[in-house]
Amino acid sequence: MKKAGILGGGQLGRMLLQAAANYPVETYVMENDPECPAAHLCHHFTLGDIKDFDSVYNFGKQLDVITIEIENVNTDALEKLEAEGVTVIPSPAVLKIIGNKITQKEFYKKIEVPTPEYHVTQNKAELAKHHAFLPAVHKLGSGGYDGRGVQILEETKDIERAFDAPAVLEKKVNIVKELALIVAVDTKGNMVLYEPVDMVFDPWLNLLIYQVGPAEVNEDVLWKAEAICVKLVKAFNSPGLFAVELLVDDEQDVWVNETAPRVHNSGHHTIEACYSSQFDMLIRILLGLPLGNPEAIQKSVLVNLIGADDFKGPVNYEGLDEVLKIENAFVHLYGKKETKPGRKMGHVTLVSSDLQDILYKANIVRKTLIVKS
Amino acid sequence: MKKAGILGGGQLGRMLLQAAANYPVETYVMENDPECPAAHLCHHFTLGDIKDFDSVYNFGKQLDVITIEIENVNTDALEKLEAEGVTVIPSPAVLKIIGNKITQKEFYKKIEVPTPEYHVTQNKAELAKHHAFLPAVHKLGSGGYDGRGVQILEETKDIERAFDAPAVLEKKVNIVKELALIVAVDTKGNMVLYEPVDMVFDPWLNLLIYQVGPAEVNEDVLWKAEAICVKLVKAFNSPGLFAVELLVDDEQDVWVNETAPRVHNSGHHTIEACYSSQFDMLIRILLGLPLGNPEAIQKSVLVNLIGADDFKGPVNYEGLDEVLKIENAFVHLYGKKETKPGRKMGHVTLVSSDLQDILYKANIVRKTLIVKS
Repeated sequence: MKKAGILGGGQLGRMLLQAAANYPVETYVMENDPECPAAHLCHHFTLGDIKDFDSVYNFGKQLDVITIEIENVNTDALEKLEAEGVTVIPSPAVLKIIGNKITQKEFYKKIEVPTPEYHVTQNKAELAKHHAFLPAVHKLGSGGYDGRGVQILEETKDIERAFDAPAVLEKKVNIVKELALIVAVDTKGNMVLYEPVDMVFDPWLNLLIYQVGPAEVNEDVLWKAEAICVKLVKAFNSPGLFAVELLVDDEQDVWVNETAPRVHNSGHHTIEACYSSQFDMLIRILLGLPLGNPEAIQKSVLVNLIGADDFKGPVNYEGLDEVLKIENAFVHLYGKKETKPGRKMGHVTLVSSDLQDILYKANIVRKTLIVKS
Repeated sequence: MKKAGILGGGQLGRMLLQAAANYPVETYVMENDPECPAAHLCHHFTLGDIKDFDSVYNFGKQLDVITIEIENVNTDALEKLEAEGVTVIPSPAVLKIIGNKITQKEFYKKIEVPTPEYHVTQNKAELAKHHAFLPAVHKLGSGGYDGRGVQILEETKDIERAFDAPAVLEKKVNIVKELALIVAVDTKGNMVLYEPVDMVFDPWLNLLIYQVGPAEVNEDVLWKAEAICVKLVKAFNSPGLFAVELLVDDEQDVWVNETAPRVHNSGHHTIEACYSSQFDMLIRILLGLPLGNPEAIQKSVLVNLIGADDFKGPVNYEGLDEVLKIENAFVHLYGKKETKPGRKMGHVTLVSSDLQDILYKANIVRKTLIVKS
């Protein structure tokens, strides 16, 4: 049995291990919290800091293959492991490019995939020189995660509250749609694409309401999206799973927003809605097995379960019974003991051949299942 | 979080724990092998003998709810735990009835569900008196499992090689079909039924070739099967999951063969083919959550992966790559390190709306994926 390790023990690791149990593999996880969502689902749990060189190196040197469930890991240790013969998926070089929004953005420019026009700024003073470039999106180079580290700067006076650190200032696009598209690449370079999903945001609150898969887009947009993702992921020149976030503007142009070189929230619907889930797919890649079938079985709507505002402490799922009675709803709770505002605590996937049915039910789920303490 | 325990750590426990990771539950497993398939997928693993009173009692008294993945456990300890307030699913009384083929058979007679005519015999001498009752099926009262402890006695001379122990001698029915039907009952007595599956045997070798779900039966047989299962499972008067094996004879009569009060091989297809799998369903029952939806999403064919004859030792899956390329095949390997002839090592479920397509592919799987050492 191959020995496969995961850096990080959150819900992504948890779901990866659920899928791994279909395969002959010995699993290892490293995380600095012994009660993290993935800790109890692996063969061997190591308490350690995934950002620390020695911890990552010592964890990895016992393995045949190592992957990540969060980008913010010690890539120098991964490079050393790769040099010593451990298979590292995705390659540390990709993690270095993606790990900083500035190098990520410059990579998109270098390989010529469409991405919104931008400036790199080192501090607030430098940023102020670009006031004529606003409205723009201001993204911290490093340290941002899950929406943190991103600001919208509408006009010059907003620069006052901007980050005073290396960042990307990106031209605001007239977004009409946000898509996510997952690409899988095996160690031989074979590639398959999942159909893109549609990220539906509340226009007033800028909050993800739900995600619809496959996305409702015309063929032209679909082809652009696929062509961009193929070009981008080929340029990474690495096996792995890549979740590409794309923006569609009011002229039906498609732009790359960001890439995550790992299993991703935008692919959770694949567990029930596709033949091979993103987790199954990554396990196959790690073990050198043939790629799975990314094709959709049914349409899906995914609702994230986020810790409600004003609640912090031991978690209580209000409305869980009601939601579990919905016949085509699949509930995934991540086993986190404590909730806090905005924390990802679980998700619900609804599947059907009838999209209207599950859009209706998704709204019921959103209003019914509340994560409190 | 509720604390839920499983007695037994085989593949049934393994798949139950894969499903449990969608729910807020702290999981416990007891088994006498630290490398058993379920050992690494629970929060707490206890090395212990599930047939031993003290081991089961001490394991169970820390739990809110306990279940089994094999019948052969210490039911006295479970009765004591139940009396002390631990929820035991299924009830120990049901385990006592089902745990011995004689009491199981007498229960069917008492509650008046159709089951083949029989005699109970204590030893070979007593058996010999019933020579005129042959051809018959001779089933050991206790100790039989997975086909062991069952003999076909065609004629008087076969009695020589019969078991010399308490047993059931059951009239041989002219079987044209074997069905399995799973019933789920929650702690409030609510009940749902999965559609039955068709167990397809090789008529020459008497080996299960594959299992087709939903079974292809006429409405009359389906209604009889459902009515029998409802009556039977109500009579058990216990929450849990019950897999009922049924025989259909050449006059389209339906007979109860055996019941397993747990998740069962005949329900593995439900993982992909039904909205709520048998494992999801049992977890809901254990946690006091609403029952899931047993409805089928697609048709399925299930192929068991059995250790090939003449191979014993560290397992090697010949043809795995080929089978993983089949687009609608779901492979489940149980993580057992050693194979031996006849050992259940995994299964493959094929799903489609087109039954002919998956019957064809099931035969490819059977001939391609060979469990060797």
